[in-house]
Amino acid sequence: MTDTARIRDSFQRQSMMATLGAEIAKIEPGQVTITAPIRDDLKQQQDFAHAALAFAIGDSAAGYSALTLLDADLEIVTAEMKINLLAPAIGERLIAEGRVEKAGRRLVVVAADVFAEAAGERKRVALLQGTMIPVPA
Amino acid sequence: MTDTARIRDSFQRQSMMATLGAEIAKIEPGQVTITAPIRDDLKQQQDFAHAALAFAIGDSAAGYSALTLLDADLEIVTAEMKINLLAPAIGERLIAEGRVEKAGRRLVVVAADVFAEAAGERKRVALLQGTMIPVPA
Amino acid sequence: MTDTARIRDSFQRQSMMATLGAEIAKIEPGQVTITAPIRDDLKQQQDFAHAALAFAIGDSAAGYSALTLLDADLEIVTAEMKINLLAPAIGERLIAEGRVEKAGRRLVVVAADVFAEAAGERKRVALLQGTMIPVPA
Amino acid sequence: MTDTARIRDSFQRQSMMATLGAEIAKIEPGQVTITAPIRDDLKQQQDFAHAALAFAIGDSAAGYSALTLLDADLEIVTAEMKINLLAPAIGERLIAEGRVEKAGRRLVVVAADVFAEAAGERKRVALLQGTMIPVPA
Repeated sequence: MTDTARIRDSFQRQSMMATLGAEIAKIEPGQVTITAPIRDDLKQQQDFAHAALAFAIGDSAAGYSALTLLDADLEIVTAEMKINLLAPAIGERLIAEGRVEKAGRRLVVVAADVFAEAAGERKRVALLQGTMIPVPA
Repeated sequence: MTDTARIRDSFQRQSMMATLGAEIAKIEPGQVTITAPIRDDLKQQQDFAHAALAFAIGDSAAGYSALTLLDADLEIVTAEMKINLLAPAIGERLIAEGRVEKAGRRLVVVAADVFAEAAGERKRVALLQGTMIPVPA
Repeated sequence: MTDTARIRDSFQRQSMMATLGAEIAKIEPGQVTITAPIRDDLKQQQDFAHAALAFAIGDSAAGYSALTLLDADLEIVTAEMKINLLAPAIGERLIAEGRVEKAGRRLVVVAADVFAEAAGERKRVALLQGTMIPVPA
Repeated sequence: MTDTARIRDSFQRQSMMATLGAEIAKIEPGQVTITAPIRDDLKQQQDFAHAALAFAIGDSAAGYSALTLLDADLEIVTAEMKINLLAPAIGERLIAEGRVEKAGRRLVVVAADVFAEAAGERKRVALLQGTMIPVPA
């Protein structure tokens, strides 16, 4: 299985991603992009996309970025993740660009930028920085 | 409107909470508990509850804890939140107990413990620590 | 070597702790307390103890808490640590109480509360939450 | 007072920076670099630079980056800061490059990369991401 197939397969098995309408937009070594529509049922009380939506796709994009650099018999779990919210997430969809900051044998340090897209314009709404651990698949 | 009514009202307007099946279980000054079933459509690739579900209800429980201590004309938004995952989230439901660590005028530092409940036994699966900012409602 | 001796020995070899005047005040299974005077040469620009001093002893207290629960042939390194500052650190000394939140085989999740002591009164000034990794000593 | 003079003046008043031998290497709008020698008295138990040294200059570099973008009657305090350690800090000195990720009116989200320099080669050893709050000077 290629890396791309392996990641699509793992993503497919994350039922929460489907529930949120999330999709993989790009897979490259050390970089994965995931998008999700800002649906009416995924909002917080001020009508912006919920922080948990930005977290969900940012964490996934970061985790799959790590997976692109690992042996095929490994999976990834999040050990910890921090999100800083920069601006209200307004628009049609969120785009999370994940990347590997440092791939170690025991830990992979990752990051993600999350953007809100409104009428074709992107605005960065969140930054994530965290740690993934490789585990047997 | 009492604090309890105010928080239930705000929670009601968070459409994502309904999408996740989340409910408020307790509201006390500085402490709010939120639960969510571990549904089949809210899982990650190894069949555990998704980290984003723990994040979603942990962040909400922490935020509403802050709201219990604020004037009625204020709302709360998350500035930043960090989650450490402690164990796989297995069982029937997640329970997030949020609390205020320090209520300042400009910032409220909050925390939450998230537990997975399986056959009546609770196991702590995540710790959150973060910052909320009061904003005009 | 007992745990206590082992921790005192490791602490002794951390030259930065001596530079900061830090001392171990308590060692118990899963809990270590470290103190440091708020010296004039350890301040920030508003004359409070520097955040890096609270970080330094909070991180050490948390790390040594983890070490109390590990086999004698292991050392601990910090993988990541987050600090929330709650109040200005004013007084004669800082006291960091570290604790283990979850001891895993590959990762140990830790936390610490840091207090400033002024005229015998303690005020909590910082919260830390982070991850330690066991490594061969 | 120019921005540069203002930042050098504030830095001068941070006695801990002098204690650590830290110096400002660069000041540009939204970007400040701070360096510190890896002295024998600033180490951890395995003879690497202490994580608290990386934190100290990373946090300062990030904070002063924020200060470059603020009105002259404001100072900056750290609300929260997270550090991920990437590699042992070995060499002659540490170099912390701070930057502003998002300058808001109430909060400034900042980041810093910390490098260890050994024989002219730089290796990234830490990533910081955090929040600064403007306060009256």
